[in-house]
Amino acid sequence: MNKKIVTIGEILMRMTTPGHRRFSQSDYFNVHFGGAEANVAISLAQLGIECYHITVLPNHEIGKSVIDYLKSRHVRTDYIEFSDQGRIGLYFMETGAMHRSSKIIYDRFHSSFSKIKSDFFNWEMIFKGADWLHWTGITPAISEETLLFCEIAINKAKEYGVKVSGDINYRRNLWNFGRKPLEVMPDLISKTDVIIAGLTDFENCLGIKEEDFESACKKTVRLYPNIEAIATTNRISHSTTHNVLSALMYKDNKLYTSKEYELKNIIDRIGSGDAFMAGLIYGLLHKEDQQALEFGLAASVLKHSIEGDANLADVREIEMLVSGNNIGKLLR
Amino acid sequence: MNKKIVTIGEILMRMTTPGHRRFSQSDYFNVHFGGAEANVAISLAQLGIECYHITVLPNHEIGKSVIDYLKSRHVRTDYIEFSDQGRIGLYFMETGAMHRSSKIIYDRFHSSFSKIKSDFFNWEMIFKGADWLHWTGITPAISEETLLFCEIAINKAKEYGVKVSGDINYRRNLWNFGRKPLEVMPDLISKTDVIIAGLTDFENCLGIKEEDFESACKKTVRLYPNIEAIATTNRISHSTTHNVLSALMYKDNKLYTSKEYELKNIIDRIGSGDAFMAGLIYGLLHKEDQQALEFGLAASVLKHSIEGDANLADVREIEMLVSGNNIGKLLR
Amino acid sequence: MNKKIVTIGEILMRMTTPGHRRFSQSDYFNVHFGGAEANVAISLAQLGIECYHITVLPNHEIGKSVIDYLKSRHVRTDYIEFSDQGRIGLYFMETGAMHRSSKIIYDRFHSSFSKIKSDFFNWEMIFKGADWLHWTGITPAISEETLLFCEIAINKAKEYGVKVSGDINYRRNLWNFGRKPLEVMPDLISKTDVIIAGLTDFENCLGIKEEDFESACKKTVRLYPNIEAIATTNRISHSTTHNVLSALMYKDNKLYTSKEYELKNIIDRIGSGDAFMAGLIYGLLHKEDQQALEFGLAASVLKHSIEGDANLADVREIEMLVSGNNIGKLLR
Amino acid sequence: MNKKIVTIGEILMRMTTPGHRRFSQSDYFNVHFGGAEANVAISLAQLGIECYHITVLPNHEIGKSVIDYLKSRHVRTDYIEFSDQGRIGLYFMETGAMHRSSKIIYDRFHSSFSKIKSDFFNWEMIFKGADWLHWTGITPAISEETLLFCEIAINKAKEYGVKVSGDINYRRNLWNFGRKPLEVMPDLISKTDVIIAGLTDFENCLGIKEEDFESACKKTVRLYPNIEAIATTNRISHSTTHNVLSALMYKDNKLYTSKEYELKNIIDRIGSGDAFMAGLIYGLLHKEDQQALEFGLAASVLKHSIEGDANLADVREIEMLVSGNNIGKLLR
Amino acid sequence: MNKKIVTIGEILMRMTTPGHRRFSQSDYFNVHFGGAEANVAISLAQLGIECYHITVLPNHEIGKSVIDYLKSRHVRTDYIEFSDQGRIGLYFMETGAMHRSSKIIYDRFHSSFSKIKSDFFNWEMIFKGADWLHWTGITPAISEETLLFCEIAINKAKEYGVKVSGDINYRRNLWNFGRKPLEVMPDLISKTDVIIAGLTDFENCLGIKEEDFESACKKTVRLYPNIEAIATTNRISHSTTHNVLSALMYKDNKLYTSKEYELKNIIDRIGSGDAFMAGLIYGLLHKEDQQALEFGLAASVLKHSIEGDANLADVREIEMLVSGNNIGKLLR
Amino acid sequence: MNKKIVTIGEILMRMTTPGHRRFSQSDYFNVHFGGAEANVAISLAQLGIECYHITVLPNHEIGKSVIDYLKSRHVRTDYIEFSDQGRIGLYFMETGAMHRSSKIIYDRFHSSFSKIKSDFFNWEMIFKGADWLHWTGITPAISEETLLFCEIAINKAKEYGVKVSGDINYRRNLWNFGRKPLEVMPDLISKTDVIIAGLTDFENCLGIKEEDFESACKKTVRLYPNIEAIATTNRISHSTTHNVLSALMYKDNKLYTSKEYELKNIIDRIGSGDAFMAGLIYGLLHKEDQQALEFGLAASVLKHSIEGDANLADVREIEMLVSGNNIGKLLR
Repeated sequence: MNKKIVTIGEILMRMTTPGHRRFSQSDYFNVHFGGAEANVAISLAQLGIECYHITVLPNHEIGKSVIDYLKSRHVRTDYIEFSDQGRIGLYFMETGAMHRSSKIIYDRFHSSFSKIKSDFFNWEMIFKGADWLHWTGITPAISEETLLFCEIAINKAKEYGVKVSGDINYRRNLWNFGRKPLEVMPDLISKTDVIIAGLTDFENCLGIKEEDFESACKKTVRLYPNIEAIATTNRISHSTTHNVLSALMYKDNKLYTSKEYELKNIIDRIGSGDAFMAGLIYGLLHKEDQQALEFGLAASVLKHSIEGDANLADVREIEMLVSGNNIGKLLR
Repeated sequence: MNKKIVTIGEILMRMTTPGHRRFSQSDYFNVHFGGAEANVAISLAQLGIECYHITVLPNHEIGKSVIDYLKSRHVRTDYIEFSDQGRIGLYFMETGAMHRSSKIIYDRFHSSFSKIKSDFFNWEMIFKGADWLHWTGITPAISEETLLFCEIAINKAKEYGVKVSGDINYRRNLWNFGRKPLEVMPDLISKTDVIIAGLTDFENCLGIKEEDFESACKKTVRLYPNIEAIATTNRISHSTTHNVLSALMYKDNKLYTSKEYELKNIIDRIGSGDAFMAGLIYGLLHKEDQQALEFGLAASVLKHSIEGDANLADVREIEMLVSGNNIGKLLR
Repeated sequence: MNKKIVTIGEILMRMTTPGHRRFSQSDYFNVHFGGAEANVAISLAQLGIECYHITVLPNHEIGKSVIDYLKSRHVRTDYIEFSDQGRIGLYFMETGAMHRSSKIIYDRFHSSFSKIKSDFFNWEMIFKGADWLHWTGITPAISEETLLFCEIAINKAKEYGVKVSGDINYRRNLWNFGRKPLEVMPDLISKTDVIIAGLTDFENCLGIKEEDFESACKKTVRLYPNIEAIATTNRISHSTTHNVLSALMYKDNKLYTSKEYELKNIIDRIGSGDAFMAGLIYGLLHKEDQQALEFGLAASVLKHSIEGDANLADVREIEMLVSGNNIGKLLR
Repeated sequence: MNKKIVTIGEILMRMTTPGHRRFSQSDYFNVHFGGAEANVAISLAQLGIECYHITVLPNHEIGKSVIDYLKSRHVRTDYIEFSDQGRIGLYFMETGAMHRSSKIIYDRFHSSFSKIKSDFFNWEMIFKGADWLHWTGITPAISEETLLFCEIAINKAKEYGVKVSGDINYRRNLWNFGRKPLEVMPDLISKTDVIIAGLTDFENCLGIKEEDFESACKKTVRLYPNIEAIATTNRISHSTTHNVLSALMYKDNKLYTSKEYELKNIIDRIGSGDAFMAGLIYGLLHKEDQQALEFGLAASVLKHSIEGDANLADVREIEMLVSGNNIGKLLR
Repeated sequence: MNKKIVTIGEILMRMTTPGHRRFSQSDYFNVHFGGAEANVAISLAQLGIECYHITVLPNHEIGKSVIDYLKSRHVRTDYIEFSDQGRIGLYFMETGAMHRSSKIIYDRFHSSFSKIKSDFFNWEMIFKGADWLHWTGITPAISEETLLFCEIAINKAKEYGVKVSGDINYRRNLWNFGRKPLEVMPDLISKTDVIIAGLTDFENCLGIKEEDFESACKKTVRLYPNIEAIATTNRISHSTTHNVLSALMYKDNKLYTSKEYELKNIIDRIGSGDAFMAGLIYGLLHKEDQQALEFGLAASVLKHSIEGDANLADVREIEMLVSGNNIGKLLR
Repeated sequence: MNKKIVTIGEILMRMTTPGHRRFSQSDYFNVHFGGAEANVAISLAQLGIECYHITVLPNHEIGKSVIDYLKSRHVRTDYIEFSDQGRIGLYFMETGAMHRSSKIIYDRFHSSFSKIKSDFFNWEMIFKGADWLHWTGITPAISEETLLFCEIAINKAKEYGVKVSGDINYRRNLWNFGRKPLEVMPDLISKTDVIIAGLTDFENCLGIKEEDFESACKKTVRLYPNIEAIATTNRISHSTTHNVLSALMYKDNKLYTSKEYELKNIIDRIGSGDAFMAGLIYGLLHKEDQQALEFGLAASVLKHSIEGDANLADVREIEMLVSGNNIGKLLR
């Protein structure tokens, strides 16, 4: 039976310099909508899963264009609210090249999402028949309102027996509304079944400081026995367009290691972590553990070849990459 | 001797949909920097005047690109400050066509400029040798800080014997920091020598409600005897790309009326009021009154044919249009 | 209560030369999806109506992109079928300018839609709760299969008590599968409540040859008493980018005449008839007759300012044009 | 029987600012090749005439691209020579709009063509079976070498019984190699059968100063009895994109007057005089006099709707415009 | 003496997604014309060979644009026919990147070429003075008519003593008009002097199933003694933009092996096989065997750096690559 | 204290084919201004140095756009002269790819700069407070006038105690006004403190023919004891987009060797030598020798990732690359 997945989180407008131009050389910006959780929803929708994204948008034409975008990518927008308060969060991105890094200027404060009211939402309808809720550590980091919204969503999910995943995703330039991650994240994580976390996430959000992923996982699952699986990707950056990517998952006291991919001529790495999360969720729902991890990583690898924030690869393409067939062939 | 003119005010980044696309059809936005007062500075710089613009910009690559832009248009940026507080104000513009209007979504709150500190600036240096200060009613409408900044700038200008012009430019979607225009504008206007104002400006900023421009001017100069000249443009919109434009000036108890121009195939009308202001300032400094008005209007007419916020026409081009020669000819 | 409208018909891919380039000057083509009936659905969806479009698409990535497009424009695609038979119909369009006409090269034969099987569709579900069915004379003109599909759809609509509209839209370069319009169209029209027809449509599809619209309407409603209303637009072409447009409607033995609009600097006239149809349907459902006609025409006028096949104007914009307010103003 | 026409003259590369941008706003230039005489050849080739263009090009990839361009437009390049001497002549064009004129910066000196050697060419082959030679007053104005080349071409044409046309086309920024137009043009014109000339041409190239075209023609044919026909276009420029165009021809002691066309939304007027010349040549070869003039003018009118230097309209399109049918209709 | 080569075959229009966009992300398609045999003709024309391409095109503006394109690339179009029957064959291509493959959707059935009439053509004129005929296995795979056309062309070539090459190019998604490759290809191949074939070609078109190229060649030349040379390229695909390419030729009982090229940052691989064929033909006509193979492969390598279907490299560039000089240098 | 640097030299307009298109495939050219010495000035201005560039430009809109460009990049233009003589020098560049080299067609003769008058310039003002003069071997190679201009500039610099650097930059397609490099370069080099020279430069401009850089340097400093430092970069070209770059400097009888960088996916290598020069000047002024060389090379490496002729990297970015931190990381 087809799965239903709920994602919650803010959607930003990305303005990217064209070609590989610097900010000071650009007289136009390419526009993409994205958000860590909505990216997961879109990726999963391409894999045939019914996804509902929950957010708040400003009540103007650009806010409405976000709806158009989500619909075009087959994400259900039934529960998205519009607000006359606040703006759409933005970020500007200068596309790097070679030894020159890409740069992001955030301009996301005072957004409509940051003023979200949790009682806008009919949680019963939202979680009716749902299999999974996905959240990220960005949401509790924005404002008192979004923290509350995130807490309620997770609690409601638990209440309705819905599985929960969370991408810890610690961002040091957020968390400036008065709370510290260590005050709030442990509780949220303790109710989450599948998490994505790297060493800085463990340290900043759980206070667990370890040298390696496996030790951190062991300590984490001991403290938070609700957690079923912890995964992460490992990226080595030789240059802006040349990375090496692999993934790890700790589950049932076992460390799973993926294949390693050499990524050259990267088109767009934004959202590749979200593509991994989506692929992993799909994998955990449909495959055994090692294959789930490989599927998640292959999804992330393909994302690097696709412009925009979301992975538009389908199941067949991802499985073909996992199997190593037809790579780079011309498909007629 | 060459003139020196000082302009003060915020610079925004305009993001315009390409072609005549609607917001929901656009996957990139053209980028132009602009601001009512900086537009005046740029227009005057094309006419050979030395212009200094005073503002505050966010301390990042896009803020710095504004400096690059102003320099490229020959405006002096020596006194511009950078701040780690706040953002760059934005607005998004959907380009209309035919019977479909152009639309603007503002996103300008919380800018670095709105947090301006007036004591950043060395006013003595700024006004040394200056002939003219130009401000607009947008600046006092933004925040307590920008109101204070505007007041100080005008007072300093008077102190150093610098002539002052102001474009009243009432905007009903600003003025939400607690003050009302009628509380503060009359004082600022009373210290200004040349103003641009239309009937809504008179009403909202001076409390003078009249049926026609001439009566409003008469009442105004009676109440504010410092005012030398009041000018306005008159626009009839047949469609987004077809307008009719003329101008009026009341000076020395006399009403001057300009020629009327039929504007078809309009390229970009943003900044056409600022082009008029700049042309009028130039005219008042170099020509007699009727010719000053015609020069200002012709400058504004030419602006409609130029992409971006600022008028890039030079003196020869504007005078050629005033004289009616060579219009539409191929200049080899 | 919100209305539900069903549209049936083929969707084509339009490949348009960029700028005003001739075919032999173009090294890329802009791509738009469209179809007379889907355009109506999209236009109505922008007006807040729930629309379901029924069609068949080829089972490949471009066929699937049509779904993405319809969803992005808020049209429901639940009942669209995919087929391994046939292709997507195309047409190539050279954009004219001035005295040079635009040109269309059709390449629409052998499409998946032309091989449609009517028993693919669950008509009961489709028409459950529906208020309106819209078809055009293009569908019966394509193939034996599409004729049958159109007949069944109309018959089912009648069976479920759904109102029916039809745009006669006679195309002399279709109708080459063996049937003549006069053999089949009268029956279809006789079951239709609201039709759009011009003099050539009356003549070719009903055999009614009259000098003027009113006489043709009188004769038609006498012969086909089921018809409630007949409407048409009247276009005078001064040049490719300069037309004059008005509309007529004959209803309850009365001829309604609309305002006349001068259309200069036309952006894209493709789909302007469909925009009129959609506006008229909306008008007939929500307004009295004269206003319904004006609403339909104003919708069509706005379409000329919008790139692509479908009208993206909303109710407020159309009503603003009907009322004549704010035309060409900059909306801040 | 199909006609063979020979044209001689320089080909320049035009670099045009995109959109309606000013030079200082453009970071790329559109590239078109053109030359008054080659434009005539291309226009005639579209009308089905076999045209040979004679010129010299620099021996590098851009010079060779001119050949590719002429071939793509069906002009025969068999007799074009390449030279290691000199460069390709250029001009830069800023596209005007509305009341802002278009501007050209020439950069055409020291070209390979300016160093042409007339004995490069096998004139016997070139004129074998030829019906017509076309030259313009630009060629003798460039250098001693091009003057000689032009003289020889005309003399050879006369020798082989080939009819000759010339567009006088006086350019005051040429003629700086030491000769004056009045020294050399009368002789060249005296051997020419059909000329295009306006009042400044008559004055500067023949020393005939008259108030009106007819008087100038009368005087001219009296002095140069070889001339069969003299034609000119009359352009009124309301703005850069709005002109009015008509044409006159004096032939057999009779003045022919054409229809007048209102040209709005002009796309590209470069080469419209050459389109007239080509249309007139075609008309004089295939039609009676009044129709020849109308055909020439309609060709020129259509050129204004086509990007690039050459008219790409075919016979059917031009005749449709002459007849006034289908203007601005969508041709399916 | 300059060579004359005749190529026969269909020309398709390729519509390619821009950048590396997926189909569902593209709002325009880049347009290139191409066809395996016409690509060979264009490549050879760049090498200075006089090439005539024989085909049928639909009688409309896009069909005519194919002529413009071939002429611009110096291919003779004298014998190309236009037909009112059928359409231009198309294919849509999604440009892959990294681990994501490029994808092609064919839409080539019912073309004008598929309905070709062999008696349209004056074979005597076509082959007069010709040195070479080139065909591919695509032509006999399309329809009964194209099979007949191919047979006649080959037979006529043999009759006039013209050498024949054939690229077997087995395509499993063609061959659906009723004939099987093994019914018809052996006869065609038996009359061909130089073939390009890989292991799948041998198996599907000759019924020769071998493990390696050399064995397949040996068996083939034993059965078809007319064949002088058999060549193939060997491609290893590490990713869409990273391939390794080498070539083999079996001639006079000897296997020639080429250098191997590492191809990174591939621009466009479409037509690289045709570039090899063209280079090999040129090489066999002008060089000794090993050098002919190297020349063919280097031509193919350079093609990967050139957008579009045809190789635009000249003899000097190809020889420079064979010699290994100046690779990647800036040539001033 | 902030440094003041003076650069002298011609500025050319580069017209580059878009994408990786060949000349014959390009219908527009990207435009960049550049010149070896102005590139150095712009690079240094990005590093916070006050730079004055001295040149002559043609007195038209494109000449003036060069001023706009230099100002936008923070280079002082106070001493640039305009002339009615001559043109702007150009070069056309075809962007290569893979094994296909980039190609340059120069069109720079007869420029305004080539007719420079040295007494235009107020050398006293120019060198007042200056720390450094930079020239290249291109200037003396153009014309008698530019040679004289270069000599005077260097002599004045010495007179005012300003340090001098020179990039020898021998170009064999210049030097055709009658002088030979060996007649004039030794004298200019003998007055220069820091030079960039490779083996061909030593040979052609100093007559010093050695096998390796170190020997050439030793001989050079023996003959020209004024020279403090000699540097060079070493480039290995695997393909157009894959180079390996390192640098050497000989100073105080010591050879410094830099790190080696692998450059893949090169964006634009034009100006990378100038970026090295600028980085080296900055390094010599602010760092010790080994670090100066590394800074210069890292600047050059970053230039390869930036479109246009000039390096737009700042001090922090270059130092980050030298330190090897954060390469290819996403900087948030």
